[in-house]
Amino acid sequence: MSDDQASQPPVPPRSDRVRLRRMHERGRYDFEALCAVLDAGCLCHVGYVLDGAPVVTPTLYWREGRQVYWHGSGASRMLETSAGTPVCLSVAHFDGFVMARSAFNHSINYRSAMLFGTAEHVSDPAAKVASLRYFVETLFPGRWDTLRAMTGQEAKATMVLRMPIDEASAKVRSGPPRDVEDAAHPVWAGVLPVRMVLDAPVTAPGVPAGIEVPAHVRDFDIARPQRSPDGY
Amino acid sequence: MSDDQASQPPVPPRSDRVRLRRMHERGRYDFEALCAVLDAGCLCHVGYVLDGAPVVTPTLYWREGRQVYWHGSGASRMLETSAGTPVCLSVAHFDGFVMARSAFNHSINYRSAMLFGTAEHVSDPAAKVASLRYFVETLFPGRWDTLRAMTGQEAKATMVLRMPIDEASAKVRSGPPRDVEDAAHPVWAGVLPVRMVLDAPVTAPGVPAGIEVPAHVRDFDIARPQRSPDGY
Repeated sequence: MSDDQASQPPVPPRSDRVRLRRMHERGRYDFEALCAVLDAGCLCHVGYVLDGAPVVTPTLYWREGRQVYWHGSGASRMLETSAGTPVCLSVAHFDGFVMARSAFNHSINYRSAMLFGTAEHVSDPAAKVASLRYFVETLFPGRWDTLRAMTGQEAKATMVLRMPIDEASAKVRSGPPRDVEDAAHPVWAGVLPVRMVLDAPVTAPGVPAGIEVPAHVRDFDIARPQRSPDGY
Repeated sequence: MSDDQASQPPVPPRSDRVRLRRMHERGRYDFEALCAVLDAGCLCHVGYVLDGAPVVTPTLYWREGRQVYWHGSGASRMLETSAGTPVCLSVAHFDGFVMARSAFNHSINYRSAMLFGTAEHVSDPAAKVASLRYFVETLFPGRWDTLRAMTGQEAKATMVLRMPIDEASAKVRSGPPRDVEDAAHPVWAGVLPVRMVLDAPVTAPGVPAGIEVPAHVRDFDIARPQRSPDGY
């Protein structure tokens, strides 16, 4: 993937707010590029305004078509505050340190997405449970039906928010440092790649004898945790 | 590390805003606990308010004593907007999927920090360059002096912000799912640990023959990238 995505046709930004001012050649505004960033992760940072000041909360998210979802306790200040008001949902994957010949040209490789909008509660109980099921199944296909069933009380205590993906941008930097003008300077330059990996699953105390680590855990791919769930 | 940090004496929150409402047993308000989270990473999300709406931008940060710093281009909207106004700086390390017997009790293991305050520009040119040097040296000890020297123009084009660490909290979840009441349910439960790793460094095109990968790259530890730089 080139830094400026030069092989792709440009797509204009949807609003002035998402238009990238800095390093605009790294920006992408099309849905496909955005999904590539969103679907590669599950942890985002949601920003909202509380008493005039910003609050940024890390939380899990998932995507269903042209909506992004997040959830939590019905007692959560973040969820209570962020429904019906402007929010910014930001996702960043850190891919490496870019080490140039000068401090100034040091950078990182990353894939990021920024979504603006107004979130709403998924208040219909069946729709809420269906979207929680979708979330579990995107991460761990087949797991939902093996779980102890969700109780009405648990569904009630869980708040789900969703926001349409319609004002958003993605930003990607990849590849080596671009400081060829300093190449003669006698210092090592290059990229130190970073990625997330899994360690071996650790079984919880009390799991009945004979229950093995299931395929949805054994085959989990951290580089692409969100897959379209099959079967519903 | 236990989930509730029970072995540590409790420290009261500095303000109502940083007091954890949800899962308050996971919260820590002391400087040491906060530094343990901050010093284990270098990518944060900074939130600020632009025209009444939140904007959350991923960026690199570093800590010098009781101040947290971030930087970027002098033409950056984020930096321009966030000086002198309330910001929230949030850091989250994702440590694993916590897979319970019920969907409701699924969680993640993480270490997070949330800092509130008002940022200010580091406007003194010498102080600015010194803090950029500190940043490079915390990540890659010894690198600064091997680089092509920073020009006055580069220093001028770089904006550095800092914010005192005085209104902040850390939040940590670790260990297995805590749903012993469902232990008889015949499903696998446990933790799928996640961590960041490095791949082998990739040398940039044009690096002169005989320049090897330096120790500060070879020995880099992604689990603790920020170390106190020696020598100044």
